[in-house]
Amino acid sequence: MREVGQDKIRVDAYGKVTGEAKYTADLEPKNILHGKVYHSTIANGLVKSIDTTEAEKVPGVVKIITCFDVPDIQFPTAGHPWSVEKAHQDICDRKLLNQRVRIYGDDIACVIAENEVACSQALRLLKVEYEEYPVMTTVEEALKEGATPLHPDLRKDNVIVHSHMTMVEKDFTYEEGVKKAKEQYGEDNIVEFSEVYDTPKISHCHIELPVSFAYVDVNGKITIVSSTQIPHIVKLYASMALGVPAGKVRIIKPYIGGGFGNKQDMLYEPLNAYMSMQVGGRPVRLEISREETIYGTRTRHQITGHTKAVVTKDGQFLARKLEAFSNNGGYASHGHAICANCGNVYKELYQDKLGTEVDCWTVYTNAPTAGAMRAYGIPQSVWFTECQTDDIAKKLGIDPLELRMKNCMPAGFKDPHNGITFHSYGLKQTMEKGAELVHWKEKRAEYDKPQSGEKRRGIGMAIFCYKTGVYPIALETASARMVLNQDGSAQLFMGATEIGQGADTVFVQMAAESSGLRFEDIYIESTQDTDTAPFDTGAYASRQTYVSGKACKKVAEEFKRKLIDYAVYMVNHAVEDFSKTVYLNEVTAAAKAIREAYGLKEDEEITKEMLDVLESEIIEKKNGKAVLPLRILADTAFYSLDRSVHITAELTNHCKENSFSSGACFVEVEVDIPLGLVEVKNLVQVHDSGVIINHATATGQVHGGIAQSIGFALSEELLVDEKTGRVLNDNLLDFKIPTAMDVPDMQVDFVELDDPTGPYGNKSLGEPPIIPAGPAIRNAILQATGVAMNTAPMTAQRLTDAFREAGLLETI
Amino acid sequence: MREVGQDKIRVDAYGKVTGEAKYTADLEPKNILHGKVYHSTIANGLVKSIDTTEAEKVPGVVKIITCFDVPDIQFPTAGHPWSVEKAHQDICDRKLLNQRVRIYGDDIACVIAENEVACSQALRLLKVEYEEYPVMTTVEEALKEGATPLHPDLRKDNVIVHSHMTMVEKDFTYEEGVKKAKEQYGEDNIVEFSEVYDTPKISHCHIELPVSFAYVDVNGKITIVSSTQIPHIVKLYASMALGVPAGKVRIIKPYIGGGFGNKQDMLYEPLNAYMSMQVGGRPVRLEISREETIYGTRTRHQITGHTKAVVTKDGQFLARKLEAFSNNGGYASHGHAICANCGNVYKELYQDKLGTEVDCWTVYTNAPTAGAMRAYGIPQSVWFTECQTDDIAKKLGIDPLELRMKNCMPAGFKDPHNGITFHSYGLKQTMEKGAELVHWKEKRAEYDKPQSGEKRRGIGMAIFCYKTGVYPIALETASARMVLNQDGSAQLFMGATEIGQGADTVFVQMAAESSGLRFEDIYIESTQDTDTAPFDTGAYASRQTYVSGKACKKVAEEFKRKLIDYAVYMVNHAVEDFSKTVYLNEVTAAAKAIREAYGLKEDEEITKEMLDVLESEIIEKKNGKAVLPLRILADTAFYSLDRSVHITAELTNHCKENSFSSGACFVEVEVDIPLGLVEVKNLVQVHDSGVIINHATATGQVHGGIAQSIGFALSEELLVDEKTGRVLNDNLLDFKIPTAMDVPDMQVDFVELDDPTGPYGNKSLGEPPIIPAGPAIRNAILQATGVAMNTAPMTAQRLTDAFREAGLLETI
Repeated sequence: MREVGQDKIRVDAYGKVTGEAKYTADLEPKNILHGKVYHSTIANGLVKSIDTTEAEKVPGVVKIITCFDVPDIQFPTAGHPWSVEKAHQDICDRKLLNQRVRIYGDDIACVIAENEVACSQALRLLKVEYEEYPVMTTVEEALKEGATPLHPDLRKDNVIVHSHMTMVEKDFTYEEGVKKAKEQYGEDNIVEFSEVYDTPKISHCHIELPVSFAYVDVNGKITIVSSTQIPHIVKLYASMALGVPAGKVRIIKPYIGGGFGNKQDMLYEPLNAYMSMQVGGRPVRLEISREETIYGTRTRHQITGHTKAVVTKDGQFLARKLEAFSNNGGYASHGHAICANCGNVYKELYQDKLGTEVDCWTVYTNAPTAGAMRAYGIPQSVWFTECQTDDIAKKLGIDPLELRMKNCMPAGFKDPHNGITFHSYGLKQTMEKGAELVHWKEKRAEYDKPQSGEKRRGIGMAIFCYKTGVYPIALETASARMVLNQDGSAQLFMGATEIGQGADTVFVQMAAESSGLRFEDIYIESTQDTDTAPFDTGAYASRQTYVSGKACKKVAEEFKRKLIDYAVYMVNHAVEDFSKTVYLNEVTAAAKAIREAYGLKEDEEITKEMLDVLESEIIEKKNGKAVLPLRILADTAFYSLDRSVHITAELTNHCKENSFSSGACFVEVEVDIPLGLVEVKNLVQVHDSGVIINHATATGQVHGGIAQSIGFALSEELLVDEKTGRVLNDNLLDFKIPTAMDVPDMQVDFVELDDPTGPYGNKSLGEPPIIPAGPAIRNAILQATGVAMNTAPMTAQRLTDAFREAGLLETI
Repeated sequence: MREVGQDKIRVDAYGKVTGEAKYTADLEPKNILHGKVYHSTIANGLVKSIDTTEAEKVPGVVKIITCFDVPDIQFPTAGHPWSVEKAHQDICDRKLLNQRVRIYGDDIACVIAENEVACSQALRLLKVEYEEYPVMTTVEEALKEGATPLHPDLRKDNVIVHSHMTMVEKDFTYEEGVKKAKEQYGEDNIVEFSEVYDTPKISHCHIELPVSFAYVDVNGKITIVSSTQIPHIVKLYASMALGVPAGKVRIIKPYIGGGFGNKQDMLYEPLNAYMSMQVGGRPVRLEISREETIYGTRTRHQITGHTKAVVTKDGQFLARKLEAFSNNGGYASHGHAICANCGNVYKELYQDKLGTEVDCWTVYTNAPTAGAMRAYGIPQSVWFTECQTDDIAKKLGIDPLELRMKNCMPAGFKDPHNGITFHSYGLKQTMEKGAELVHWKEKRAEYDKPQSGEKRRGIGMAIFCYKTGVYPIALETASARMVLNQDGSAQLFMGATEIGQGADTVFVQMAAESSGLRFEDIYIESTQDTDTAPFDTGAYASRQTYVSGKACKKVAEEFKRKLIDYAVYMVNHAVEDFSKTVYLNEVTAAAKAIREAYGLKEDEEITKEMLDVLESEIIEKKNGKAVLPLRILADTAFYSLDRSVHITAELTNHCKENSFSSGACFVEVEVDIPLGLVEVKNLVQVHDSGVIINHATATGQVHGGIAQSIGFALSEELLVDEKTGRVLNDNLLDFKIPTAMDVPDMQVDFVELDDPTGPYGNKSLGEPPIIPAGPAIRNAILQATGVAMNTAPMTAQRLTDAFREAGLLETI
């Protein structure tokens, strides 16, 4: 391939480095009004009244809206495509402002004012009366007999969904697996394991806060400019929330400073629009603070995994079980999809000889609402599998790499339940490559030797697999459009969204590859405006290079076909239609060159099969010789007095395929036992994401994911006060994400198998990087110290507590 | 027709009435830099040096650019489509800033500063040294032996083009016509006429001044937001002016406060872009003042017409001749096209039995540059024909209406030179209808009676014809795009531009008519952004309802075809693909209704021939019954798990047709002889523009045109100082346009012939309204006073001079 696989510089590099790239806040019109949301100071209860009298007196206040004013419409927020099938529709459990309070900081009123200060002053003067209910921040409390149901109109209790999944027999149970194991292998030859692992509630910490502004345009169209990953989904859901037809809503997505899934939810867009509609359509801005973002938008799900396993003594996995309890907070958002995803990978990463059983519970609580976050339940899932696997390895005295090699899902496996095949599955190759790069064998042996002293070293690993997009669970559809310019360059329009991940750059590479234009000759429109952009469900599920990429490929091929059609017209009509033009010489020379190459007489027709496009030139295919620059073709197509045609192409890719990516991470740590500090000394992560479109940007994706996974492992955790439901660390001083100082040099590599289903042999890469480093660190600590940490993050407090309990501190 | 012909309220009415419609200046980003142009204080000469030292010291000044800094590139500015034929390309005679000064107020430098005040201060501190040449503001001076050629690199003298046209024989000469007339009719039976008529240089006086802002975007794209009628043409020409490929330039056209042809020229867009490029791509605004607009942008051509005619005594036109001299000012702009257009209509409005001869000269002078203005040379042409015709009528004692009826071009005539046929030519009907409405016969007879006293009345008339678009002289091409929304409504994108004339509204009517959607369900994007909008050459030549309208019709039909295709899929797969969906009932009921209507069995296929779209519903054609709302079709097309397709359509109309509109104006005036004041008491104007899409907006167009024509007749004239070339009345206090007080009640009517070439039987209406009122007023004054005014405008000064000369003042 000519363009795919090249390490092109990002198309937005210059603009982002210089600060010229325009983000939502940069685009606000002059004289915009300011909006702020009033948040509840209880976590569970009912707003009885809101007194706005004093607040309304603040100079500059334009309008105050309370939960008693908004339409009585419940709507969904999850960034899933809408479904015409009831069973696939998301839960409608939220209003623009909620009278029924379900989280600490719920949205119960908002203020619009001429300036921010007036907004803040008015907020402080609102007087709210509540009826309070007991606060339930944990799954246990919410599941208790007699617990207040948070959404009694939708669910009789607080269980959003409970699902039961198995592999491979539909009616397989773990108990049956243990029974069979004993029968088939003998009780002496098997070992049973049981352990509970826990993961934290986490904030996404995208640098750009949720920000939007809204106005009603001349034609009555409600326009929302927003930092969202899913403009087309927000268009539909905002229309539902506002009770207007979808055609009346327009979403514009400028550059985004990160989303990580938090912006794969409709956040404040419809409230922002409603605020504008209440002030005659005037532009209103709504920027959500870091604190509000942390407690009031979405979080990663805290999921507790109760795991069991039965294995042979030589390390053959026979049966495993996961019972996962997911704390969804006050609103459904992505609901059960995430816990189900977690359960799926638990049964897909390893192949149990007898079977696997998974039970997933997703539960409403008064904790902050959980939604999508990068890798959508899989960091939790892999925390469970990889802690469990290393614990088994330790117990059996088997090398963890060997144990994984033995039991991981083999390539070619086809899930009988959803039909997904592990097409080009390079998991084993990633383990081999990573182990070699990190010198696994040597290091493992070295650190297996008895260690003493305050600082001890270990090496650990973890593996993962990850689907590409959401087919067959949900719809995968994407459109693209190309438009020729007068100079032979082209505009590329994707419905898919650039959210910082580099999508625009790889789309241009793809379009260049398949259209024959040079990379430099394709301009991508990065802003998705739902009125003008092709339709696409958005940036999530690591779907865009695969699903939208196929749309890009198809449209580029169609565009090329149209270019060639026009070239065929030109060279066949060189004499009669070009005699008066400035291009007569070029067109007749092209016709001559093609006829010579194919041995045609002068009156014989040149056909499209003889032509191709390469490097922005029409070439004759026989010798691959350039015969006509697209510049001349384009100038002619626009301005020909004989045949003027504006060459464009637009089409949809309805994707009905999926493929698994995978990878392995190897981490070397040094643990300071008295301080409970872990330093990541060395990290190797190898991905199988099929063919890599751009190694530079792909590597960047992996780097970012690793940093986040280190945070997951060592520091990131939202602390929710059990009594009040209030988040105790809702700022970046107290909620600790890794800094550059905390991130080691990272060695990133790829195993490039050509996936038969990917448009260019590629498959998912967006989310996977965030998955494995966390459990690999945990397993390295296990080797270094002998202490198995079951709860992430492994903070200094948790580590020293565990070291103390294990008696390690006394030995130093 | 269902939608075409309905008097729909303008789609932008609400936004424009409330002030919410966004114009260029409303969209400027925050912290924009200000730019101003320095204009020469001589009209002919050379800039020897510009000292910027003092100007650069002004606090806030960011950059000063002089004519010595800009690229040495000459470019065209006329809003014509580019041509791949050299002979059709416009003249490249202008640079971003000109060292060679050709008009008073030529652009020779510009300043960029943090604020407007600093800009103005710096301008005042620039010190310029000139080398001066003699000033030639008139055609006579510029054509004199030894006159300085203004563009010696392009033309050896100041003649831009001279052309000679005849009707109908190619080699016909007027002299030969006179000779033949004498031979065939006898000297006693014929009369010869010779007269010189003159027209003024006029400013367009659009309310919104030329305003733009420019910046370089993240991807290096030079973006110019501008109040232009021709965004796609400006894109190409600006790229030429800047020396960059066309794909690097993006033009965005918001709502416009009028253009009238001045904005059918590239004005300051490339200079504005260049200013931004010189300050690192920062946004720079450039708003041209009223004074600069009047002297420095474009004007209507002052054309002098030397006419001759030979007619039989009973009023048969035998031969006529026009020699037209057009004062083009310092730069070519639209160049000869306007004078040629003027000459064409001279020979097309009446049919001379023996032949017509036209000689057109277009000449560079040091007067302000002339360019396109509404009706593009035809107000001048019709001033010549209609003054001449009434003068003939008077001399022969024939009723002017009768004389016109006898000699006007008959329907069905085909011009042998360009092949244009007078298809549905209702000129005579417009005269009949207008005469009846105004009571021509009675009024004419009444005012023919001897009048005395200070105030005298008269009634006059004038007729015109006008082409639709520019085929076959130049390219006519237009594209359109439609995009389905989730609620079954659609977006309509036209490359054609709304410039205040109501184009958006009639396009929506057309799209509704041909797609079957309701008017309310189509949202038009009014902003043309050359990156996203379909291609179209723009708003000029009264082309859009005809050329772009055909594109709109074709795309709506294609869009409907795609909707029907999808409906066919739905009803034929109702059972298998819809069983799990929320629409099962609706889709199966639709299938059943169609099968019943057509007597199909349950396994027989429903075909697309059985379905249509009406009022945003799929209907079965047999009984015209609605079976499925588009809302359900759209929701399914987007979100079907079986067949997801994003329905859009986009295509080009390359138009190779033309048709003549025509009309007649009747005016009753009261002339105050001592004061030289003319009051228009009554005005009837009847147009044949084929089928009228929207009578309300069409009538509005006619009203505006009449007002401008009254200004042409009575008050509008740029006064150019012959010594310096400076415009003496470059403001709206001294340049008089009619106010509401000057415009009478106007009676507007239409003769609606169904034109076979128009998309809906329609043809040009945009420009024609401006043509006939002026000469009709002149002819009414002629009847009232017996004085033939040959020069427009007929100001109080000119009238009292003429009345004095005619001895009228003494008789009172």
